[in-house]
Amino acid sequence: MRHGGDLGEAIEAFGGKTEEWLDLSTGINPHAYPYDALLTAEDWARLPSASRQTDLLQAARTAYAVPKPLSLVAAPGTQVLISLLPDCLPAGHVHILGPTYASHAHAWTRAGHDLTEANTFEGLLQGLKTSPGHVVLVNPNNPDGRKFKPAAVLALAQHLRTTGHVLIIDEAFSDCLPELSLLPHLTREHNVLVLRSFGKFYGLAGLRLGFLAGPANFCGALVMKLDSWAISGPAVAIGTKALSDTSWRQAMQVQLSKEMDSLMSVLSSNGLDIIGHTPLFVLTETANATALHQALARQRIWTRRFDHSPTRLRFGLPNSMDGLLRLARTLAGLLPLP
Amino acid sequence: MRHGGDLGEAIEAFGGKTEEWLDLSTGINPHAYPYDALLTAEDWARLPSASRQTDLLQAARTAYAVPKPLSLVAAPGTQVLISLLPDCLPAGHVHILGPTYASHAHAWTRAGHDLTEANTFEGLLQGLKTSPGHVVLVNPNNPDGRKFKPAAVLALAQHLRTTGHVLIIDEAFSDCLPELSLLPHLTREHNVLVLRSFGKFYGLAGLRLGFLAGPANFCGALVMKLDSWAISGPAVAIGTKALSDTSWRQAMQVQLSKEMDSLMSVLSSNGLDIIGHTPLFVLTETANATALHQALARQRIWTRRFDHSPTRLRFGLPNSMDGLLRLARTLAGLLPLP
Repeated sequence: MRHGGDLGEAIEAFGGKTEEWLDLSTGINPHAYPYDALLTAEDWARLPSASRQTDLLQAARTAYAVPKPLSLVAAPGTQVLISLLPDCLPAGHVHILGPTYASHAHAWTRAGHDLTEANTFEGLLQGLKTSPGHVVLVNPNNPDGRKFKPAAVLALAQHLRTTGHVLIIDEAFSDCLPELSLLPHLTREHNVLVLRSFGKFYGLAGLRLGFLAGPANFCGALVMKLDSWAISGPAVAIGTKALSDTSWRQAMQVQLSKEMDSLMSVLSSNGLDIIGHTPLFVLTETANATALHQALARQRIWTRRFDHSPTRLRFGLPNSMDGLLRLARTLAGLLPLP
Repeated sequence: MRHGGDLGEAIEAFGGKTEEWLDLSTGINPHAYPYDALLTAEDWARLPSASRQTDLLQAARTAYAVPKPLSLVAAPGTQVLISLLPDCLPAGHVHILGPTYASHAHAWTRAGHDLTEANTFEGLLQGLKTSPGHVVLVNPNNPDGRKFKPAAVLALAQHLRTTGHVLIIDEAFSDCLPELSLLPHLTREHNVLVLRSFGKFYGLAGLRLGFLAGPANFCGALVMKLDSWAISGPAVAIGTKALSDTSWRQAMQVQLSKEMDSLMSVLSSNGLDIIGHTPLFVLTETANATALHQALARQRIWTRRFDHSPTRLRFGLPNSMDGLLRLARTLAGLLPLP
């Protein structure tokens, strides 16, 4: 499976060296948490100890406001959790609100579940009436930034509880929008599993660290599959420190929102329609999206296009003001496309 | 599940600070591959690209002499492979040559397979006659260092092929004993899966990197479960470099063998019987093993004891000549135990 956000694909098709490219194809924070001074030789040499793994989970529990009765599992990225999750539930029907991050649909289909993709929240509720099943919701949604209010999502969870199904919420991009998270509202009784990604907001996607919060029985099944040592020593050390750093988090939430405002203003002023956004990415619409994607690529600017939405392009944040100015200059020179 | 090799357990029971302890409880090379200069900010910030993952697999294929027709899968440590492997095979009977690394038995039992533990290779062959099934063999075996010749193991593989079963060989400690590895002898026709651990020989257990080689259909099922992003960027970068470094590997094989000779001579001269060894650990026998384990722990030397063999202690390599001298002095002061 080819994922998005691999600059290798850009270089293969359009040439250039990595350092010449302005990579806006991901939703990863370009300002990584400062990890340089955090690691010791032990983090590399030893298996992560039980006590340090406990510290990591405690830091994540506080940062993500996971209520005490819920279990919390750490994994080498949410990708492997998305992949293993469907195996932990009996095969049945699953409803996904899309278009969204494609790995969800792939994992459920592969595990033998029937899949329905709804395009609106209302359509999803409607579909549940005719074929009850599990639900996968990405909040805020990737790539269109659609946001679902906790009250509505909780009502959905309540409904699923009555039919004996599970609600899976992928909150990978919620760090900047903590008011959207369902976690603070959950109790042991909810059949809700919440995925949280470390690497996107902390700008360390290569570290591979993600979490799943939910009822103990679900989480226990995943812990068994992953065993206790799948997370690297550096991920345990950096994750624990970063998740405990409240002031960095708060400052970064403000900074990313401001940077996204600037990016959106550049895109709008060049005539691109904005469909939706989070502080880490913005989805735009233009009839010539494919042509614009290629024209930008010829200028070594890599954006994210979607097979399912050929008129749309997603932009992540540039890593500096220079990067933003380069994008602005390039767009001004290209648009309107002939 | 409590694994061995967690110094936290030692400190909890006997006190002291991490740096005061001489930790001989693991089989991890105390001389880590020099990784300091290998990493760039990209390794941390980005998802590992497809091309870099391919480079890693190519380096592992060459280092481990994996024949072309076999598939090769990378994972965040062999632990997760051991845990997921039984789910990829229909439930049935499995024979394990033990006592050995306990995670194998746990994983197969948990996945619903029936388990028989044989104590000798001959006993294992005998057991296969009455109840055909898969076989798990650790070669060289941990903790007793038993070594099984490729010719005998290949004959076993041949037999399993006729009954339609799979041979799983865990070669976690074979880097110093490449002549034991079955990999160079395998073809597409063998139903053999070989596990290789990166962290033990390269002294980077915290990195979490391991491999599985075998027929494409088995490996494909595991790749699906793990997805493509479970290995960290640092693991991809360091693993690729280290596995390609033939001269480091050859020099380290010689160095570790010499260091093990010195360690064994210290243990023997203090009256401990040596049961078996590899260049990374040695298993000893003494009637007072539990008392010796505790007496050493009170001197801040942590060894590995086994519930299944209360008269045995396993020693890993000290990280320096000073460490070896400290062990020698301490043993001389303690033995014979009163």
